Amino acid sequence: MMTTTTDKPTGNALSGTPTSTDEWRDRARQMADLLAVDAAQRDKEGKPPHREVKLLKDSGLVTLLGPAAHGGGEETWSTALRVCREVSKADGSLGQLLGYHYLWAWATRFFGTEEQIVQEEARYTRDCLFYGGAINPRDKDITAVDEGAALRLNGGKSFASGSLVSDLTCLTGALDDGRRLFVIVDSKSPGLAYNHDWDNMGQRLTESGSITATDLIVPWSAAIGYVDKKITPMVYNSLSLLTLQLVMTNMYLGIAEGAMASAAEYTRTRTRPWPYGGDDKEAATDEWYILEAYGDFRSQLWAAEALIDRVNEELSDLLHGQREAVTFARRGEVAVRISAAKQLVIRQGLEVCSRIFEVMGARSTAAEHGFDRFWRNLRTHSLHDPVAYKAREVGRYTLLGELPQPSFYT
Amino acid sequence: MMTTTTDKPTGNALSGTPTSTDEWRDRARQMADLLAVDAAQRDKEGKPPHREVKLLKDSGLVTLLGPAAHGGGEETWSTALRVCREVSKADGSLGQLLGYHYLWAWATRFFGTEEQIVQEEARYTRDCLFYGGAINPRDKDITAVDEGAALRLNGGKSFASGSLVSDLTCLTGALDDGRRLFVIVDSKSPGLAYNHDWDNMGQRLTESGSITATDLIVPWSAAIGYVDKKITPMVYNSLSLLTLQLVMTNMYLGIAEGAMASAAEYTRTRTRPWPYGGDDKEAATDEWYILEAYGDFRSQLWAAEALIDRVNEELSDLLHGQREAVTFARRGEVAVRISAAKQLVIRQGLEVCSRIFEVMGARSTAAEHGFDRFWRNLRTHSLHDPVAYKAREVGRYTLLGELPQPSFYT
Amino acid sequence: MMTTTTDKPTGNALSGTPTSTDEWRDRARQMADLLAVDAAQRDKEGKPPHREVKLLKDSGLVTLLGPAAHGGGEETWSTALRVCREVSKADGSLGQLLGYHYLWAWATRFFGTEEQIVQEEARYTRDCLFYGGAINPRDKDITAVDEGAALRLNGGKSFASGSLVSDLTCLTGALDDGRRLFVIVDSKSPGLAYNHDWDNMGQRLTESGSITATDLIVPWSAAIGYVDKKITPMVYNSLSLLTLQLVMTNMYLGIAEGAMASAAEYTRTRTRPWPYGGDDKEAATDEWYILEAYGDFRSQLWAAEALIDRVNEELSDLLHGQREAVTFARRGEVAVRISAAKQLVIRQGLEVCSRIFEVMGARSTAAEHGFDRFWRNLRTHSLHDPVAYKAREVGRYTLLGELPQPSFYT
Amino acid sequence: MMTTTTDKPTGNALSGTPTSTDEWRDRARQMADLLAVDAAQRDKEGKPPHREVKLLKDSGLVTLLGPAAHGGGEETWSTALRVCREVSKADGSLGQLLGYHYLWAWATRFFGTEEQIVQEEARYTRDCLFYGGAINPRDKDITAVDEGAALRLNGGKSFASGSLVSDLTCLTGALDDGRRLFVIVDSKSPGLAYNHDWDNMGQRLTESGSITATDLIVPWSAAIGYVDKKITPMVYNSLSLLTLQLVMTNMYLGIAEGAMASAAEYTRTRTRPWPYGGDDKEAATDEWYILEAYGDFRSQLWAAEALIDRVNEELSDLLHGQREAVTFARRGEVAVRISAAKQLVIRQGLEVCSRIFEVMGARSTAAEHGFDRFWRNLRTHSLHDPVAYKAREVGRYTLLGELPQPSFYT
Repeated sequence: MMTTTTDKPTGNALSGTPTSTDEWRDRARQMADLLAVDAAQRDKEGKPPHREVKLLKDSGLVTLLGPAAHGGGEETWSTALRVCREVSKADGSLGQLLGYHYLWAWATRFFGTEEQIVQEEARYTRDCLFYGGAINPRDKDITAVDEGAALRLNGGKSFASGSLVSDLTCLTGALDDGRRLFVIVDSKSPGLAYNHDWDNMGQRLTESGSITATDLIVPWSAAIGYVDKKITPMVYNSLSLLTLQLVMTNMYLGIAEGAMASAAEYTRTRTRPWPYGGDDKEAATDEWYILEAYGDFRSQLWAAEALIDRVNEELSDLLHGQREAVTFARRGEVAVRISAAKQLVIRQGLEVCSRIFEVMGARSTAAEHGFDRFWRNLRTHSLHDPVAYKAREVGRYTLLGELPQPSFYT
Repeated sequence: MMTTTTDKPTGNALSGTPTSTDEWRDRARQMADLLAVDAAQRDKEGKPPHREVKLLKDSGLVTLLGPAAHGGGEETWSTALRVCREVSKADGSLGQLLGYHYLWAWATRFFGTEEQIVQEEARYTRDCLFYGGAINPRDKDITAVDEGAALRLNGGKSFASGSLVSDLTCLTGALDDGRRLFVIVDSKSPGLAYNHDWDNMGQRLTESGSITATDLIVPWSAAIGYVDKKITPMVYNSLSLLTLQLVMTNMYLGIAEGAMASAAEYTRTRTRPWPYGGDDKEAATDEWYILEAYGDFRSQLWAAEALIDRVNEELSDLLHGQREAVTFARRGEVAVRISAAKQLVIRQGLEVCSRIFEVMGARSTAAEHGFDRFWRNLRTHSLHDPVAYKAREVGRYTLLGELPQPSFYT
Repeated sequence: MMTTTTDKPTGNALSGTPTSTDEWRDRARQMADLLAVDAAQRDKEGKPPHREVKLLKDSGLVTLLGPAAHGGGEETWSTALRVCREVSKADGSLGQLLGYHYLWAWATRFFGTEEQIVQEEARYTRDCLFYGGAINPRDKDITAVDEGAALRLNGGKSFASGSLVSDLTCLTGALDDGRRLFVIVDSKSPGLAYNHDWDNMGQRLTESGSITATDLIVPWSAAIGYVDKKITPMVYNSLSLLTLQLVMTNMYLGIAEGAMASAAEYTRTRTRPWPYGGDDKEAATDEWYILEAYGDFRSQLWAAEALIDRVNEELSDLLHGQREAVTFARRGEVAVRISAAKQLVIRQGLEVCSRIFEVMGARSTAAEHGFDRFWRNLRTHSLHDPVAYKAREVGRYTLLGELPQPSFYT
Repeated sequence: MMTTTTDKPTGNALSGTPTSTDEWRDRARQMADLLAVDAAQRDKEGKPPHREVKLLKDSGLVTLLGPAAHGGGEETWSTALRVCREVSKADGSLGQLLGYHYLWAWATRFFGTEEQIVQEEARYTRDCLFYGGAINPRDKDITAVDEGAALRLNGGKSFASGSLVSDLTCLTGALDDGRRLFVIVDSKSPGLAYNHDWDNMGQRLTESGSITATDLIVPWSAAIGYVDKKITPMVYNSLSLLTLQLVMTNMYLGIAEGAMASAAEYTRTRTRPWPYGGDDKEAATDEWYILEAYGDFRSQLWAAEALIDRVNEELSDLLHGQREAVTFARRGEVAVRISAAKQLVIRQGLEVCSRIFEVMGARSTAAEHGFDRFWRNLRTHSLHDPVAYKAREVGRYTLLGELPQPSFYT
């Protein structure tokens, strides 16, 4: 599945718009096949993935959530999360970029007015625009000064994932009166500078470098959720954090599945049986320890998958339901289960990504294969927020029935 | 949930026949609450659970799968497996007895003729009969001599689970020409002797002692699947093994969930915070390591649950579909996933059942609580067949796409 | 090693006093062989181990630390800890009783005056007296009233390990002015009542039930460390806690080693290879998963053993050196390493004691073998104080170089 | 410990020849401090470590095992293995190069005549020569043709570790009559070509690329162990494999220790406490999960260290004893313990190298730190031979008392 086929008619395969959930998943798989061909090489070079974002656009995946009236797929989040997972199997960076894009594409739903929703969804779907963003709350921040009809933004953000290869960038900041601000700006805005300082051991293509805003002028209409410079919070806002966490969770599962599939291909075709002191097997695929390891990988990832699929449905139902109907209680129940799924798949995934080498053998460490990228990608991104706190949160729920307070990470 | 309430109107609570899947699950939970009251005491005494089997009968759970025309619930296997899991939360032995009962109650579907199905299901449902059985294939065996209209059985079986407290007993044996035989006999048959030799560290109430058949006369009509002394195999037969394995899997999950719930109750109400060298918490429920552990337990068991629920549906669909339609391929796909779920829940469950003490503290080891029964029950039954072979089987599938050959254990 | 041999001339084997460290270890092994014969039966019956304490006395092990001038072995603590470990291989309860006895036998060294040391060591060595004790600091307490020449003690202790089968009992309590008191009294003192309430899932023979002191009169001379009703603390006092912790650590290693050895004997002689779906091995001892598991057990326990042996030497050096020379720094360095060794061997040991069943097979769960006692024993005692705090303590040292403050558990 | 200090008088620190084991260890630690300064940068660049080999030579470490008469340290293998471990803490590649050098420097002891030992040890010690080598037995091979006084070698070797940066290269090959050959040649020999094809995810500086021998002429005197073109095997020969395995084992421990120390430095100085949903700690070093993790790392690595130190002594004793006195039994006992230590430290080390990120936080994944090199180094080299076979070997010994047959990997 992860192998290269030089004569694959990829151009044709990804044309036309899928018309069912199953077709969207197939489309994602085809995209993954395409991306897998040179994933190792791409990871090594670490260049901005302009071409790959273009592929995502051409495939239709970028507008999967967009309104059908404007050419979008109008699919559910459940499908979007599965698509993110599929793409991550081939390339964790692209999976992240796409997953984050879906999140930003939903920004007006999370925070905006009905009018903003209609306008923004029409805009990005019609023109097939790609989102990046920077919303890290622990960061040095961007401050906004109200200048009447517009806002003047200054400051910086450490991690602007995907912004460099995007059309639109989501930014958070603070008004001078302390109120939080969420704006969507053109990624090529003159006041926005890219510092090209993303150099990381994993997720190398996510272009998560820092940005600087210098007298970036933004109309009040781009301040999502503000009406007459006022904003009314609702519980639905905080689903954005859950959605981000679940995007990550699906991405992690994808990376782990990709590692396992790549390893299996290698074991089947290249690994040699061990000739000393064992059972003298004729093929590596008869070695007990190899079979046992794959059985263990598969069992763990099937369990993670079953839980994640279920939680995907739960959150998807919330996201597509009435915004006003979301309660803290219902939100909290889903939050706990996302935390459970996330911390589980991180642990399992890291184990799989590290142990695959044991079932491939010493030569699989050659740089040409780039098999360490799975571990590097998962290890890097899974530090987004401490996994120990996820377990603690699930523990409080299990032991005391306590639901997590919404925060920037829950 | 696991606690005793002396004034609970249990008689009323379990009366009436549930009319929906949800009601059946509630019924199972009520039964579990009842059984939990004196589970520790019962485990200690190790007497035949005649009273508890009576409770199962009275609750309607025994005829859950039976035809509605005769008063049965006519529910799906998916529900039966969930009920088995619920009961196992309170008492692993009773969960096993009920789960095995469901298996035997389906014996004519697995192996029998249409006529046998109709007759046997009517019989056991109408009279609310409880099954036990002995089919261990690695055992010293029972041999059957064809005496014309009847068969004469002699020999023994090492493990006749539940037979002693049952109305009907399923036995396997071999005809003198080597053909396998499956018969259902009255558990009080004069030719059937109980050796009362079940004394085990776990699952102590399953009455899995040995039996001896001495000139046990069985009519040919009790030989399931035989028509004119001939039998025609079909793939569906081998679903019996899968069903047995999945009964176990649900039972193991139930035991682990029961352990976690019992521990949580104890931690909440009895465990003291640790006063030396830490953060001086005021309550044990604020201790980081305790919260983290419960979070870990819950996450693992949620993942196991999600996978098992899904596999329950898959097998249930096969079991309730056309018998002739079951192919080796479809059967094999489900078999692999059962193996995955089983080996996973065993590993996770053992960890939970052993680690619960760390979050309860030293005094929780007092014999009066009997909290070690969870580990003893799971440890004992999870050895039914080597878990390492399950992982290997899943590995062959993952690596090579190979489906397991049907055997007495797959 | 763990098996019974009916014609073993055990009487002769344990006669004579060993004259070297190696001979003491051999003596301990012989004692272990003796105790192993009926360990499962003894665990089941749960009677006070009067006979076994008598065996320990006859073997000379009880006076191993006593002065040679009075017939003692005058051996080091390093040897005593090894002996405790050897005995624990056969019977965790007896290992604990002997290890705690060594601790009490050193009580005057920990807390007493030079004169008390000479007197008490002469007394117990000459008459081969066995110690029990109750010093749990989290307990409801005993209070002492100064009545001039004597103290009047009233109150109770929850866990008086071994006291019932001992000659002398160590008690802690508090004077009415709040000062801590450590006294040694005759276990048959009229004012001391045994409540016979030890009924636990593990370490069932340690007779750790509660005791009640009612107007128990104790001369001031029995108040260890008091001179003219005054006491002067020194760092050496707090080595008592470290010694207790290291006694436990050696006991846990012994239990795990005993489990592994018992399992290996069973696997070699009784376990059958698995005939379905594998490599069709002729013997269980050729099964890959069984070999791998034993390799894993052995590797883990060898590592634990190497660390524990080293720490035994470190503490032994402190214990036998100048009492005044012990500094908080040196004490702390050893304390951290004991904590590391303890938490490690608990984790490894529990894994071994639970997994041994997987390499023995289903029939090994028969109650006659009593193989669950290893897990029950280790699980029970390893809760003495939370293992998570041990890891935390080692963590503070590793990360910050911080040494643990002496407490009742460090 | 792993940090850089710009004004350290490193030149002076490493001058003079150590005169005791402790001084040698200090020297190794100083070397490690030097190498740690730019280890991340070096790993990234992946250039041949000519300068670093020069540093090793200047430090005296290269001739640590050489005869004192010629200026060597005449230290034991126990010290050499510790030195290898120390250097590996800072740089796994350099640790490997030095450890392998020690192995080759002992080649004449393993296989040679007394005369060869004297000559070769004098040569390399006097001139401070550095060894590389290629002896992989699973490789395509080098064949040697006897041309009277000399041998003509042709063929290739896939992995010539360190050869490119060495003075002397050890090669194995086969005579045309099938006999194995071990020769030491000048690394700059005209017939020896370096293919510069080492590009790997880990141990990037070991220069383990392939070499080609083309009409490489070697005098018979360089054929180690041959006298009059004949060779007499002895058990001592096979200690070379054990020594190689134990060099690896110490190297792995060093890598894991280095990872932990580097992480601790980072956590202390850079990691921020987590502000959401926890205990609101003021410093990361107060976070429970961080302390617990370091405690776990330290405990595991202390246990591994204790076992490895002990096994180092055992092998060292064999290596420095009478060559003729080594029996298969004694060799086998040590071999099993090396296998145990190796598989244990690999598992523990991989866990530490992967989990350190969880206690450093997300920003620690910046490429500038290069913290992934620890995992990449250990992951890469620990695949040398399948770890599962090590466990199996230890299992056969534990269960059956069987000693491993000498092979190229045991």
